[in-house]
Amino acid sequence: MRQSGLLIVISGPSGAGKGTLCKALLDRINNLEYSVSATTRQPRNGEIDGQNYYFITEEDFMQRIKQKDFLEWAKVYDNYYGTPKKPVLEKLKAGKDVILEIDIQGAMEVKKKFPEGVFIFIAPPSIKELKMRICKRGTETEEAMLKRVKSAYDELKHISEYDYVVVNDVLDKAVNKLTAIIIAEKCRVKRNLGYYFNIQQEGEI
Amino acid sequence: MRQSGLLIVISGPSGAGKGTLCKALLDRINNLEYSVSATTRQPRNGEIDGQNYYFITEEDFMQRIKQKDFLEWAKVYDNYYGTPKKPVLEKLKAGKDVILEIDIQGAMEVKKKFPEGVFIFIAPPSIKELKMRICKRGTETEEAMLKRVKSAYDELKHISEYDYVVVNDVLDKAVNKLTAIIIAEKCRVKRNLGYYFNIQQEGEI
Repeated sequence: MRQSGLLIVISGPSGAGKGTLCKALLDRINNLEYSVSATTRQPRNGEIDGQNYYFITEEDFMQRIKQKDFLEWAKVYDNYYGTPKKPVLEKLKAGKDVILEIDIQGAMEVKKKFPEGVFIFIAPPSIKELKMRICKRGTETEEAMLKRVKSAYDELKHISEYDYVVVNDVLDKAVNKLTAIIIAEKCRVKRNLGYYFNIQQEGEI
Repeated sequence: MRQSGLLIVISGPSGAGKGTLCKALLDRINNLEYSVSATTRQPRNGEIDGQNYYFITEEDFMQRIKQKDFLEWAKVYDNYYGTPKKPVLEKLKAGKDVILEIDIQGAMEVKKKFPEGVFIFIAPPSIKELKMRICKRGTETEEAMLKRVKSAYDELKHISEYDYVVVNDVLDKAVNKLTAIIIAEKCRVKRNLGYYFNIQQEGEI
């Protein structure tokens, strides 16, 4: 009886460092697959289509919404983001763990459909640090940055809807915590009903 | 705002290897303290009073029950076992994590009083292996051993009342899992309300 994979939702405000953390986690753990999102936003420097995101047009995005191709989708800062459903479900069924790196709206949408997922909130060490990180990125106008900082602050209120919070101060420590969460979740009783089933199969002593 | 320690309850049937696992875990993790139980049973070869157990008389045990000195106590196989309450509470308050290595009756008693504890069921890889382990110990009469095997089988039914199950096949792997569970539990949102409090203290952006 094979355990189906874990759906690991890594979420949190802009500037919390979700992307860097996910990359480090994927480098460390086998059997972990990254779900590539689709977006209508412009690629940032160095971002590769099909690897960081599928960069698609708004028209294409609307078409896919109609076809119910997304596990979740949301409009954030004037752009659309969505998680293609089919590849995620196929990987989970094959026993692979899947990471979704998504914003808070998206995570809440996934939670409704997959309450058995593992919901991890990546949090900045402080508001001050968050501001610095968003401003340092420097890929946006000042107005867009301020909007992002304000949203991030508001989004911290959603922590209570998550299972875990990992404060991303030192990257290596944060990756250790994420790794531990994945190992621990695989030990949860509700995910190991197969063990008890097998013991029963052995019959009475 | 200091996080109070975790109460980690390691439980499971005889022969699952709770004792060996706890010893290995204590060797590996700092800030982890073992709660020494009191018992009226005879010491086994190599067991030290005050380290493995406090070996006390039945009269003394009854006296302590009356004084409500135990966090839990139970009669198992004609002997009494109990967890002295005061040292556990003091350690938790001081921010130390405390391990209780107790039988299933005791664990269920603790769960009523401390639902915020972390309840881990240590399970044998199979019933066949469990039988072998109990018989190999060879410290008891055949009748006592058979009684123990039968109880262990019945006790497996309690798995669903625990948070985690760790199948103890390879010691090192099982210790890794226990370590991960402790790290992960410290990241649980419900144990990190202090983080959100501090962020609020920083005030609006």
